[in-house]
Amino acid sequence: MRIIKRIAIVGSTGLVGRTVLKVLEEKNFPNCSYTLFSSQKSAGQKVKFLGQNYIICELKENSFDSGFDYAIFCAGGNVSKKFIPIAVKNGCTVIDNSSIFRMDENVPLVVPEVNPEDIASNNGIIANPNCSTIQAVLPLKPIYDNYGIKRIVYSTYQAVSGAGRYGIEVLESGPENKPLKKFPYPIYNNCIPQIDEFTQDGYTKEEHKMINETRKILHDSNLKITATTVRVPVKNCHSESINIELKNNFDIYDIKILLQNFPGIILVDDTEKKHYPLPTKVDGNDEVFVGRVRRDYSIENGLNIWVVADNLRKGAATNAVQILGKILES
Amino acid sequence: MRIIKRIAIVGSTGLVGRTVLKVLEEKNFPNCSYTLFSSQKSAGQKVKFLGQNYIICELKENSFDSGFDYAIFCAGGNVSKKFIPIAVKNGCTVIDNSSIFRMDENVPLVVPEVNPEDIASNNGIIANPNCSTIQAVLPLKPIYDNYGIKRIVYSTYQAVSGAGRYGIEVLESGPENKPLKKFPYPIYNNCIPQIDEFTQDGYTKEEHKMINETRKILHDSNLKITATTVRVPVKNCHSESINIELKNNFDIYDIKILLQNFPGIILVDDTEKKHYPLPTKVDGNDEVFVGRVRRDYSIENGLNIWVVADNLRKGAATNAVQILGKILES
Repeated sequence: MRIIKRIAIVGSTGLVGRTVLKVLEEKNFPNCSYTLFSSQKSAGQKVKFLGQNYIICELKENSFDSGFDYAIFCAGGNVSKKFIPIAVKNGCTVIDNSSIFRMDENVPLVVPEVNPEDIASNNGIIANPNCSTIQAVLPLKPIYDNYGIKRIVYSTYQAVSGAGRYGIEVLESGPENKPLKKFPYPIYNNCIPQIDEFTQDGYTKEEHKMINETRKILHDSNLKITATTVRVPVKNCHSESINIELKNNFDIYDIKILLQNFPGIILVDDTEKKHYPLPTKVDGNDEVFVGRVRRDYSIENGLNIWVVADNLRKGAATNAVQILGKILES
Repeated sequence: MRIIKRIAIVGSTGLVGRTVLKVLEEKNFPNCSYTLFSSQKSAGQKVKFLGQNYIICELKENSFDSGFDYAIFCAGGNVSKKFIPIAVKNGCTVIDNSSIFRMDENVPLVVPEVNPEDIASNNGIIANPNCSTIQAVLPLKPIYDNYGIKRIVYSTYQAVSGAGRYGIEVLESGPENKPLKKFPYPIYNNCIPQIDEFTQDGYTKEEHKMINETRKILHDSNLKITATTVRVPVKNCHSESINIELKNNFDIYDIKILLQNFPGIILVDDTEKKHYPLPTKVDGNDEVFVGRVRRDYSIENGLNIWVVADNLRKGAATNAVQILGKILES
């Protein structure tokens, strides 16, 4: 076994890819060497990474011949579909940020604070969940374990950075409402209740992701969940209004303590001081911020919470790098 | 009885006041004469209204001595509290846009498409509901009447125009994040889960308004409702994600037909064509726009809808003028 682990970062020039590099620099795992890949279009670019100059390599079918131990893929579904099987065949363990393997029963879907034990069951691929799911399951996990959950109603407020660098450009073009592409309608001064495509049942794929991925991560295929996912004109950080029906009676202070003590959660909840999570304040952080924790009096064991996280970090890059960290230390 | 009705518009230079004038011009009620009032600060301004030049009068304690038949107040709670009792004492019937009389059991709270019959029980004051409540109760009414409603979960996406002209200025100042005043935190690139002040139970007054006013308008003081109200960086038009548990089994096409046929509602609901209500498209309209009507599979008789309305028009000015119209024609 090599002492130096060889790690490939695929899609390293995209918004998530660059955030992965940033988080890797912050974590600074020992005894790792990195190769950065991109499509032909961005290959040849130079980037500063870990104090050195890296040249981005073009991803090719033989890129994994040279023997990588691990790879993080953040280049979208088509690249994952084509190149991950090749990487795995060459003995590489892949953390994939795309959605294509997430619901595959042979692929664990992992949030390290929630279900790290699932990593062990991988067959070469570990899926990184959808951004909006990751930040939801952190606060749900301790509630689920301690009180049981009957039903969840999600309403999301999702930032444009979830659509990549171009999403930010479109918002920042302001009232000009530059060529759209990334969004079905102009996002400036708008709320668009459509993320990803619609399916036959009237729900979007994004809504299905939230429902199905939450069930898979919490290991409860019967969990009752509904979702409305909405794009809002915010640069970065997704917010979520989550209504939860618990199975058992609870004390609200107990819920707050559970949340506060859960790894990866920062409780910001003092209404007297107007303290609650805000996208502009959460931006750049790795934790999931939870506030407005209060009893929902419309139902016996009801609870409302407000959850904000940096969708590029905890919702994508940080979570993937944390999975890599768990593997490296195991 | 006079043939010409004398009508006072109080707070006529504010954002809602100006919209009231616009809507009055559009309605062009016959045989009405108007006097426009404001605080000392704006008094003396000239405005074009109904093809004439009006000079804004300063509102004084003796302003109602001259005998007005009707008044629309849109100058905030303090002005309403002080001057409405004086107006009523002088025989004037007042439509009040502030929140201070809304929950008074002697004051009807009216959305003309929903509970016009309540106007008759007024004792000189008719309250105009909160913007976020008005647009919610329109789609709820036909559902309530035909299937019964067990429980409602509101999550709102509220525009900055709800905080008046200054709210828009703050948003449009962009990343500069000008002096705030109107909002507890910068609204640019942000979602603020606080509208109005917090109460002891962890809910904001805005959330209480939505809960209590919905109950009052639908005449069901036991209706189960919870709410999370959020300010988003949108110039105008509030959006709402509404999750509804119906009492009885329903057909989704029947719900759509009920909504489509209800006065004041425009159904925009074709996911194949990506048709759903959007703030930028609803802006300037008097109707409540409803879309994304779909079964919530997490519960037996569950329903999700997405509701957008111009909060300055239907959420404030239009609704008040419609009430006036009902009184004038009665």
